[in-house]
Amino acid sequence: MSNDDQNIYIYGRNPIKEALTNEAERVEKIFVRDSLHDSQLPELFNLASQHRIPISHVPGSKLYDLVGSVNDQGVVALMSQISYQDFGNWLDSVDTSTYPAVLLLDEIEDPGNLGAILRTAAAAGIEAVLVPKHRQAPVNATVHKTSAGTAGRIPIVRVGNLNQAIMELKDEGFWIGGLDMDGEQKLWDLEIDRPLAFVVGSEGSGISQKTLEHCDYKFRIPMENRVESLNASVSAALLCYEWKRKSQS
Amino acid sequence: MSNDDQNIYIYGRNPIKEALTNEAERVEKIFVRDSLHDSQLPELFNLASQHRIPISHVPGSKLYDLVGSVNDQGVVALMSQISYQDFGNWLDSVDTSTYPAVLLLDEIEDPGNLGAILRTAAAAGIEAVLVPKHRQAPVNATVHKTSAGTAGRIPIVRVGNLNQAIMELKDEGFWIGGLDMDGEQKLWDLEIDRPLAFVVGSEGSGISQKTLEHCDYKFRIPMENRVESLNASVSAALLCYEWKRKSQS
Repeated sequence: MSNDDQNIYIYGRNPIKEALTNEAERVEKIFVRDSLHDSQLPELFNLASQHRIPISHVPGSKLYDLVGSVNDQGVVALMSQISYQDFGNWLDSVDTSTYPAVLLLDEIEDPGNLGAILRTAAAAGIEAVLVPKHRQAPVNATVHKTSAGTAGRIPIVRVGNLNQAIMELKDEGFWIGGLDMDGEQKLWDLEIDRPLAFVVGSEGSGISQKTLEHCDYKFRIPMENRVESLNASVSAALLCYEWKRKSQS
Repeated sequence: MSNDDQNIYIYGRNPIKEALTNEAERVEKIFVRDSLHDSQLPELFNLASQHRIPISHVPGSKLYDLVGSVNDQGVVALMSQISYQDFGNWLDSVDTSTYPAVLLLDEIEDPGNLGAILRTAAAAGIEAVLVPKHRQAPVNATVHKTSAGTAGRIPIVRVGNLNQAIMELKDEGFWIGGLDMDGEQKLWDLEIDRPLAFVVGSEGSGISQKTLEHCDYKFRIPMENRVESLNASVSAALLCYEWKRKSQS
């Protein structure tokens, strides 16, 4: 593994194959020496294509620029700087006596929205952002860019199944809140004297029905002019900052 | 002029030249009959290129589909649905006794941000959004899309010069507030018992120094984790909804 100021690279066929198999969402891009034919790396190319990871064919000197004098076997991968935390480990370590708040993202597929959400959550002092493994924008270079480099300042915890994670959060004393246009409480009725987990739904379809049923509270953001929903990153920001305002007053 | 459910088209060389000269920001796209050469419409092509308006070369039958059996002279333009209001007329008509709030955008160049801001401002019951004529994303199809079709639900007022507009707003009794990370007041110290105009700066450079000097208040959004700024549409949303929260309680 090699690092410069901005980037993390791994090299060699097996390490990259392993990364593509176990943590494909962290692989941003693959550089392949241009003298190598696709047929010499069939498995690697298949995995990359399956996960829609771009491949760039470059001269050997470019690989040298990236990782220096190592046995790169003609292939180098640029990795995301994010290290996801494991949900179980994170849950074991969280201190609920300080009444933390976390966000649970429900299929936020737009990387621009994800970046803005991570940035705002970090700014508001949210404890962690929980993201599902599937149907969720990966934390990639675009997310880093739209988060203005702040994505790394807040723990990002990956959960296999959102509804399962909600049950485990409840067992640890978290109360679950969701935004819903038919919610019985207004956003500013939020009470913060307990550990809180806020579900943020996708812009298109909101929070899924099953997840909504698990929510202890449903909040609505009051809206005028027949506007029925807000941008997902805007909704998340209003939640995060309502929590922050109350935490400080 | 011709309308279908979604779109407004104008046709003919002189009307389109006029639109490109006087309200280029409303011109989304130009369709030119493919049998016409660029050299036959030099002025029109120059104006379109100057304002970065895309030109599409299409068969005559496509023009017929758009505007029907008219003398289109081989050229049709798709216009934005937004009708901007004139600042002077708007200012004459605004009722300051109800303590309205308006947003003044200072060079918001990203159409996604502009769309999200218009949507949130409409939802929060903001009176109008004032946009400078220059160095500002035009209210085009992308803006419509990111505003989820709500851009038309709030008056959009064009101002020639932002600082001049601020002076005129002050003369009408508006107090001017700006977001600034060194602001002396926290966002939630906002007082709403007066007409308010909030300046929203660009994400890159914030509010310009000269404009900041015209502000009666400077607010800061408290931030943790060394985050120094938020996405422009997030900052604007927090301002709009702080105002809305206080207006309703």
